[in-house]
Formats: sequence, structure tokens, C-alpha cells
Amino acid sequence: MSSKTNADVLIGGKIYTLSGYENEVYLQKVASYINSKLNEFSEMDTYRRLPSDMKSTLLELNIADDYFKAKSQVEKLEEDLDARNKEIYDLKHELISLRVKLETLEDAIQKKENQ
Amino acid sequence: MSSKTNADVLIGGKIYTLSGYENEVYLQKVASYINSKLNEFSEMDTYRRLPSDMKSTLLELNIADDYFKAKSQVEKLEEDLDARNKEIYDLKHELISLRVKLETLEDAIQKKENQ
Repeated sequence: MSSKTNADVLIGGKIYTLSGYENEVYLQKVASYINSKLNEFSEMDTYRRLPSDMKSTLLELNIADDYFKAKSQVEKLEEDLDARNKEIYDLKHELISLRVKLETLEDAIQKKENQ
Repeated sequence: MSSKTNADVLIGGKIYTLSGYENEVYLQKVASYINSKLNEFSEMDTYRRLPSDMKSTLLELNIADDYFKAKSQVEKLEEDLDARNKEIYDLKHELISLRVKLETLEDAIQKKENQ
């Protein structure tokens, strides 16, 4: 098991010390993703005028939306993968039948030639 | 294009009117996901004692973590799908060669029988 990491990350101009089993590169990536959302939002006048709890909720909703979009992509890809696995199974099955047919024919030819 | 939806959702005990192109079912699902995180956190003493901006950041980090986990699942699945597509391509190629071989043999047999 990997050991616990402590990492200082800067989110919205404040330093947070995160502790967990994720590596520092990952934690910085997550922090930087949140900061880019914050920057994006702060360019909007309507956002800047909101009380801070609404600002946070808006950000949470936005991140959660990214999460649900990625999750639905996962579901779609899993379905695609299942379909491909089925196709591979069928193709392999067809290959085996063809190989058997081919061997049978080759044997028949061999027998005829031996006669 | 679908029309804009207005939906009232309850997040952390407050009502928010969300407006967007997502349907209401989706917006309620996202709100309910955030609420379940909030409930989970509020059971922790250390969380309850945090100032509200730190509470929000913790929640944002947690949701962003879910997002990055799903995103890395997407990347993994896309790689798997690419590998499957390559396998299907190879199997189809092999099938075609076998079919050609089989036809050639069948033609040869036919010719011999005709002689």
C-alpha cells in the first residue's frame, strides 16, 4: 500500500494542506482544475455579485456536472466494450468453424490423392 | 435544440433555481449527489468544526476527485476499446484469408470432380 502524502495546494488564493493516499501530482492537478473553474466564473459579473455560499454551490454544481458527464461517458464506453467483446466472441467462433471446415476439406483431398 | 429548463433544487437546505438545457431529472440527480456528500461530511466532527469556506473547498475537492476518477476510467476504457477494435480488424482480416483459402480449395475439388 502506498503511504500517505501531505501536499500544500493553493485553491482560490488560500493554502490547503491535503493529506491522503493520492500522490502530489494528482492533488495539484485537482486543485488546478478547481482554480481554472474559479477563474472562469470570476469573469462573470453575475457570479461576482453572488453571496459566497451561492458561489460555492454554483461551483459544486459545475464540477458535479463534469462528473456526471464523465460518468455517462463511462457507461456508454462500457456498453461499447461489451458489444465489441460479443463481436470478438462471434468472430472467433466463426474462425473456428472455418478452420474445421478447411481441415476437413484438406483431409478429404489428401485421402483422394492417396487413393 | 432542447429548450431551457428552470428547476428548483434543494442543496444543503437552501433552494436554488437552476436554469439550463439539462432536464429536471438530471438537475435533481446532481443536487441529490451533492446533498449526499454534504450529509456524509456532516457526520464528521472535524468537518463540522471547519469554517464554511474550508467546508466548501473540501466538498469541491471531493467532487473533483470523483470527476478525475471517472475521467481516468474513460481514458482506460477508450484504450480498451481501441485494443478491441484492433483485434476485430485482425480477426476480420484472418476470416477473409480463410474464406479465400476455402474457396480456392473448393474450386480445386470441383475442377477435379469435373475431370
